[in-house]
Amino acid sequence: MSNQKLPDIKTNFSDWYNEIVFKAELADHAPVRGCIVVRPYAWALWENIKNVLDARIKATGHENCAFPLLIPESFIKREAKHIEGFSPELAVVTHAGGKKLEEPLVVRPTSETIIHYMFAQWIKSWRDLPIKVNQWCSVVRWEMRARPFLRTSEFYWQEGHTAHATYQEAQAEAQMMMQEYINLAQNYLAIPVITGRKSESEKFAGADITYTYESFMQDGKALQMGTSHLLSQNFAVSFEMQFQDQNGKLAYPHLTSWCGATTRLIGAIIAVHGDQHGLVLPPKVAPIQVVIVPVAAQPGDLVFLKALEIKTNLEKVGILVKFDDREHIRPGAKFYEWELKGVPLRLEIGPKDLALNQVVVAERLDSTKQVVLIADLLATIPAKLQAMQDEMLVRAQTRLAGMWNKIAKLTDFGTKLAQDNGLYQAGWCLSQDCELKLKEHKATVRCLLATTEFTTCFACDLPSKNDIVIGKAY
Amino acid sequence: MSNQKLPDIKTNFSDWYNEIVFKAELADHAPVRGCIVVRPYAWALWENIKNVLDARIKATGHENCAFPLLIPESFIKREAKHIEGFSPELAVVTHAGGKKLEEPLVVRPTSETIIHYMFAQWIKSWRDLPIKVNQWCSVVRWEMRARPFLRTSEFYWQEGHTAHATYQEAQAEAQMMMQEYINLAQNYLAIPVITGRKSESEKFAGADITYTYESFMQDGKALQMGTSHLLSQNFAVSFEMQFQDQNGKLAYPHLTSWCGATTRLIGAIIAVHGDQHGLVLPPKVAPIQVVIVPVAAQPGDLVFLKALEIKTNLEKVGILVKFDDREHIRPGAKFYEWELKGVPLRLEIGPKDLALNQVVVAERLDSTKQVVLIADLLATIPAKLQAMQDEMLVRAQTRLAGMWNKIAKLTDFGTKLAQDNGLYQAGWCLSQDCELKLKEHKATVRCLLATTEFTTCFACDLPSKNDIVIGKAY
Repeated sequence: MSNQKLPDIKTNFSDWYNEIVFKAELADHAPVRGCIVVRPYAWALWENIKNVLDARIKATGHENCAFPLLIPESFIKREAKHIEGFSPELAVVTHAGGKKLEEPLVVRPTSETIIHYMFAQWIKSWRDLPIKVNQWCSVVRWEMRARPFLRTSEFYWQEGHTAHATYQEAQAEAQMMMQEYINLAQNYLAIPVITGRKSESEKFAGADITYTYESFMQDGKALQMGTSHLLSQNFAVSFEMQFQDQNGKLAYPHLTSWCGATTRLIGAIIAVHGDQHGLVLPPKVAPIQVVIVPVAAQPGDLVFLKALEIKTNLEKVGILVKFDDREHIRPGAKFYEWELKGVPLRLEIGPKDLALNQVVVAERLDSTKQVVLIADLLATIPAKLQAMQDEMLVRAQTRLAGMWNKIAKLTDFGTKLAQDNGLYQAGWCLSQDCELKLKEHKATVRCLLATTEFTTCFACDLPSKNDIVIGKAY
Repeated sequence: MSNQKLPDIKTNFSDWYNEIVFKAELADHAPVRGCIVVRPYAWALWENIKNVLDARIKATGHENCAFPLLIPESFIKREAKHIEGFSPELAVVTHAGGKKLEEPLVVRPTSETIIHYMFAQWIKSWRDLPIKVNQWCSVVRWEMRARPFLRTSEFYWQEGHTAHATYQEAQAEAQMMMQEYINLAQNYLAIPVITGRKSESEKFAGADITYTYESFMQDGKALQMGTSHLLSQNFAVSFEMQFQDQNGKLAYPHLTSWCGATTRLIGAIIAVHGDQHGLVLPPKVAPIQVVIVPVAAQPGDLVFLKALEIKTNLEKVGILVKFDDREHIRPGAKFYEWELKGVPLRLEIGPKDLALNQVVVAERLDSTKQVVLIADLLATIPAKLQAMQDEMLVRAQTRLAGMWNKIAKLTDFGTKLAQDNGLYQAGWCLSQDCELKLKEHKATVRCLLATTEFTTCFACDLPSKNDIVIGKAY
């Protein structure tokens, strides 16, 4: 690992991001356009995120399953808005088994169509409802301007799909899953988010309502973390998904889909928490929570034995520990590397420490060091990890609050938006004409809030129907 | 769920298999050639299998990661035998992002080529070795004669890939992972296996040695459960994967790949353990270990409350319990359904049982029933589950032993092989001419054993070099 400094995170965030991804061995360029290799360190982070959410998906009554990767092209075309939205991004299989296919197959960009086709086979009566399924998989959407984790031609996600007898039940489902995503972001990733509905032009191709949760990077740009959709009944109609309701009448079910956890969350963690020294990973999802670095010691030494004992004891209480016993790398270089990789706590132990029954505990967040008695580690380490988790959220909240502007008129905040990024709460008349005016500023309506603090539209003189958040997106 | 009987498992195994897969809601036909939808019950089984093996993969020093789904066509062509082996099965993406691609991309049939391409970037010095990675994903191999779980155009698996400085280390790795697969099969799936090397003609396209583990279905046909490969150095040469060894000389690393856990294991569980009533699932991987069926009771009744209490108590000790509280289905129909789905234990509880503080425990394996005091359940249930797990392995071992023939000459066992299937241990001179003679009997060399009990070849008069197992494959 080279010791070259990272680009300045304050003045050159974009380059900082691109370099840290590779230097911290999160990803590597793949030999396929817009694709990356997700390396073990990032995949372990993803598995931790996945495990948190998967348990909640199951606890809320959903079942995992697996639908095919390849979807008949005609399926995608059944729902008019859906094909309009996804057509330019599709990867298409035209040949298989040595022959040209009669009908091309698309590599799933999302699975609504093939899942709805199956739902139509399974849903005959109101007794078959609700159906609540989820799958963890990858999807492909051809990308011209890829950026690791934030925007790649193939990415990893979960997609939940449900069918309900009533609109109310479906809407409650879409909202409940959005709450789960927010819980994941705030309480595990230490990322404060803004949540609301997408505008008509920004919502999912074929949805009635798209709920979104958005975070803001250190450079003030917005990142859509994920979405949860109350789908229009068009999907049910397109796939002839009818059931007999409790009164014996034929009805169309109400559908949802929610895909709020993607490998983009790794990008959000990098961009929200990183600093000039590299990554800073939230302890609750960090692949390594504690790294032990021996100093002036060799395999077989008492220092090594004690380090292994500490490792074992910490692991017994569920802490993820790595003992960095590499012999050809000096301690200083190890410190640098684990700082770059954002490991929350580093324990340094050498012969002098051993003699005093102590270790040095270095905290990643503020680069502070503290001497701790080995006998106290089992109490101290979990407390320090929790404190760091809490502090990371507080700092991210403070930063978000600092870039949150409430200014009524685009004419008043347009220049600042263009120069400094950030988020701008204002009112909106809901017209597309006004929304289009944001284009000049390379900004978009990130979401419609539940509040109505503003009385007139940010762009025209009509009354506001909804507060919105405006920002520039990744 | 219809109450129609399953086809006779003894006389019509093939139809029995095809029906139980759908009746037990393990899979459904997908609208894509040779593909299935893996339904929640089967996916939960797969997750349990995956969790067992994934922990072992990590414990043996491997890291999970993710390589792209799409592979440049030229990569597949770099290793001559590899392209020969996979070419007829490939699904090919020719268009993406609305344009024809300059170079087609294949949907991964397996990932050696793209992973080796990346290894070549990462391996510069002996210090970079070993590299030991694994990914859980799906692969696509176009199938003309699909059969759910056993042979599908898309299937789910893990593929481990490693690079080592020496041949010995690589061989030890390939063998170690085969032992992990055997452990999984015997100690979790209750499936006894036969293990050995594949013949030259049956080994993986581009391997030096392919280790295999094979099970035998109730109809006496062999099923390749999975394989572990010591790859030839051709892959390293093709991808220019050179490193500086400890003496400063350039060398090619020795590679392995092992893909021993696939959704085919679900097929093996169905086919090895099923009976006339349906599935019989090994308790250690069953998605539901205990189902509680209330009898003559309604929601809010004391029976319901007691059933929920039992469920909670069993779950506290880690048992997977389902309380079947559906009101519109009679207990008898529930019994039938959970038998069909192979749930190891069924608890029946009604008002009379409650009055006596007891439940009826029905065991799936032999359809026996026993009255158990509720106070004794926490001791009885885990013991019964373990006993069933053990008994399933013993029975499968007995069945395997019963179809294991040791007969020296094909002329003596050819007719029996054709009529009864089964496995035949014999000697082999290792010539391909003799191997080809098995074709007439629709049989193949399943594997080369480590033993040398036979002195002459099964087909010619030359000395045997290895005992082999002959059988008909799925």
